[in-house]
Amino acid sequence: MKEENENQKMNGMLVFQSDFGLSDGAVAAMYGVALCVDENLRIYNLTHDIPPFDTFEASYRLLQAVPFWPAGTIFVSVVEPGVGSQRRCIVAKSAKGQFIVTPDNGTLSHLARAIGIESARIIREDIGRREGSQWSATFHGRDIFAYSAALLAGGKVTYDEIGEAVDPSQLVMMEGMYPEFTEGEIRGTIETLDVRFGSLWTNISSEFFEKLHVLPGEDVDVSVYKGKTRVYHSFVPFGKTFSDVEVGEPLLYVNSMHHIGVAINQGNFAGAYNIGTRDPWRVVFKKKN
Amino acid sequence: MKEENENQKMNGMLVFQSDFGLSDGAVAAMYGVALCVDENLRIYNLTHDIPPFDTFEASYRLLQAVPFWPAGTIFVSVVEPGVGSQRRCIVAKSAKGQFIVTPDNGTLSHLARAIGIESARIIREDIGRREGSQWSATFHGRDIFAYSAALLAGGKVTYDEIGEAVDPSQLVMMEGMYPEFTEGEIRGTIETLDVRFGSLWTNISSEFFEKLHVLPGEDVDVSVYKGKTRVYHSFVPFGKTFSDVEVGEPLLYVNSMHHIGVAINQGNFAGAYNIGTRDPWRVVFKKKN
Amino acid sequence: MKEENENQKMNGMLVFQSDFGLSDGAVAAMYGVALCVDENLRIYNLTHDIPPFDTFEASYRLLQAVPFWPAGTIFVSVVEPGVGSQRRCIVAKSAKGQFIVTPDNGTLSHLARAIGIESARIIREDIGRREGSQWSATFHGRDIFAYSAALLAGGKVTYDEIGEAVDPSQLVMMEGMYPEFTEGEIRGTIETLDVRFGSLWTNISSEFFEKLHVLPGEDVDVSVYKGKTRVYHSFVPFGKTFSDVEVGEPLLYVNSMHHIGVAINQGNFAGAYNIGTRDPWRVVFKKKN
Repeated sequence: MKEENENQKMNGMLVFQSDFGLSDGAVAAMYGVALCVDENLRIYNLTHDIPPFDTFEASYRLLQAVPFWPAGTIFVSVVEPGVGSQRRCIVAKSAKGQFIVTPDNGTLSHLARAIGIESARIIREDIGRREGSQWSATFHGRDIFAYSAALLAGGKVTYDEIGEAVDPSQLVMMEGMYPEFTEGEIRGTIETLDVRFGSLWTNISSEFFEKLHVLPGEDVDVSVYKGKTRVYHSFVPFGKTFSDVEVGEPLLYVNSMHHIGVAINQGNFAGAYNIGTRDPWRVVFKKKN
Repeated sequence: MKEENENQKMNGMLVFQSDFGLSDGAVAAMYGVALCVDENLRIYNLTHDIPPFDTFEASYRLLQAVPFWPAGTIFVSVVEPGVGSQRRCIVAKSAKGQFIVTPDNGTLSHLARAIGIESARIIREDIGRREGSQWSATFHGRDIFAYSAALLAGGKVTYDEIGEAVDPSQLVMMEGMYPEFTEGEIRGTIETLDVRFGSLWTNISSEFFEKLHVLPGEDVDVSVYKGKTRVYHSFVPFGKTFSDVEVGEPLLYVNSMHHIGVAINQGNFAGAYNIGTRDPWRVVFKKKN
Repeated sequence: MKEENENQKMNGMLVFQSDFGLSDGAVAAMYGVALCVDENLRIYNLTHDIPPFDTFEASYRLLQAVPFWPAGTIFVSVVEPGVGSQRRCIVAKSAKGQFIVTPDNGTLSHLARAIGIESARIIREDIGRREGSQWSATFHGRDIFAYSAALLAGGKVTYDEIGEAVDPSQLVMMEGMYPEFTEGEIRGTIETLDVRFGSLWTNISSEFFEKLHVLPGEDVDVSVYKGKTRVYHSFVPFGKTFSDVEVGEPLLYVNSMHHIGVAINQGNFAGAYNIGTRDPWRVVFKKKN
């Protein structure tokens, strides 16, 4: 099927993500392995600062970046608590045509829910492992993931050849975090922070938020809970952008992921109130009476 | 005018600077947007570690890097306390032929003073905003700056077409920090630190320093003040390079920006005396009697 | 000799390493200088987080990355306590065909021992210094190393032309750290940490470790000493990979450098016991009785 093959054409770009940091030679070793496969690959970083073993964060950061790249770009995400265990090495194709090479450990959860995974394949180790690396059992980023991705990006091996197809519904997925709307209240979670600026990024989409019928400029009754303890409560205006409020004032806004954020204009909301992410943190939004 | 057009030819290189850090997907989203405009762009980083909202530091770091790049390179600097406010999005051309895409918020101050801004244009939002991004009001780095810069770098839109010309003298500029020479003393400021090594980088050019008539190897009477409090006073030799003094000894030297630095050979001057930058910090240099 | 020239063909790739960090414009200035020599160079980073002046770490990180890159790649390593002193600027060729431009200060020690240095040349300052930079004595990374490397990578100057040959045995080398085997005990050092994960990376190769005749799955008697004080002692299984033990349990394993590592599965061994590297730290492995 010609059409399908066209659709699976790689563009020669590789984008790496990991929890390795950039302070040692690990990322550069992955780059070198990829460039030994094909010197013409163009290589980029998503981030290498995923907290160690944090597959949730890896999943979130993929959603923040992948959809903005050209179809045919290959992402490599190496965040795996279980390196060397029997988990599968996969390559998945998003519904927008980007590919992601990753251990099958939940790293695709956000992309699957927000964009969709169109197809996936299990990488055959006889194809996708760097020659002479069989002795090495702890750096699959270098020996399997970077190498396999470079084979694909450089057109040495096609997507169809890399291994057996697996139904996307059979991939490991983390349980979704969905907001709830009851009795005029939206209850949601804090998925991550806008790291440098300390804004809370909730799991409440701007569409879901419309259930409150809050108009721009109106105040919202905002609470933040750690478990059962309310650590923040105030009336916060719903603004379009930070400068809609004075410097140092809080606001609710639609963030760059189309979800509701909680911020302080030119301040750090999470830092100011010592707020973290995911369990046991919750936000509750109500329309002000 | 053919000559002028030649002079405005882009070389396909984009260099990004921001205060976003590299720990999340924001920078990678900007890269993706640019590469969707033109897959052949070559993309680099200046730094993404500008302290949040610190336009002075953004301005300084541009001067440290821009002049060393080929003419036709496009820099994108996204450090803006007032994202979404009515400030203008501009592209400016340095007197050395590099271009800088930035909010008009003072980020060009150091370049303007040291190198000169030859011309500038205000980016038309109907051209320079990514299609379908009108809902987004808080990530202009991705939706306007990276996108506009890619249009220019890829030759999709020319410098003349990107928007109306504005006289460089009408751009927002930070007040200059100039050293003073009175009664045999030079008084100056500490503009920044050589971050990893803790050397003080003053606003005193090596040319200005000649007013003291200090010869290499001679001692200088050096004071550092925090407001009115003198926190450091010593006689420090004026060396050509660090190894002109013993390990652990202080020296004055001409730094890589052609200004006077204060350092400890293989040590950390700012760390040793807990010294910061800009207000309220001052240095005073006198010829030793 | 045609064959030799073929063998010295550069591939246009430059890989930078330094102790400059990425928070200011220093690395970007080096990039710009290189791209002014040849806009078609492809530039990558090894790491810029080498601790200030730490030539041992610089040497180790080169070994971690260099061997995985294509022959003809040029590495630039700028970690030098003695910038501006009379040390030589050299370019060396590894036995695997990669080149390294570096001050002659021991930075090549690990590569020389593990891979071999085939030849080396002393960079002539009349060729390898950026025009107009003679006034600058403290940023040789920009003015000499990046510039020289770009001349070589871009084919403007050949390896033979860059300067006089020097016998690799005459280069400055750090003393080797070798493990010892006596009375059934292996005594070794901790060369570095797997930074993000806190695993100890010893100087004991997997081959040397075979002297203990430990089979996979068997326990090893492991001690860690700080000087004469034993700060850790336990029986630790020799695993193939982290997931061979329970989460939170320690293991010995063969790391990605073919040496013995000491880790906690999904934990941080160095952090847990506050363990550092090199002097005065030692590990002792014995077969369990």
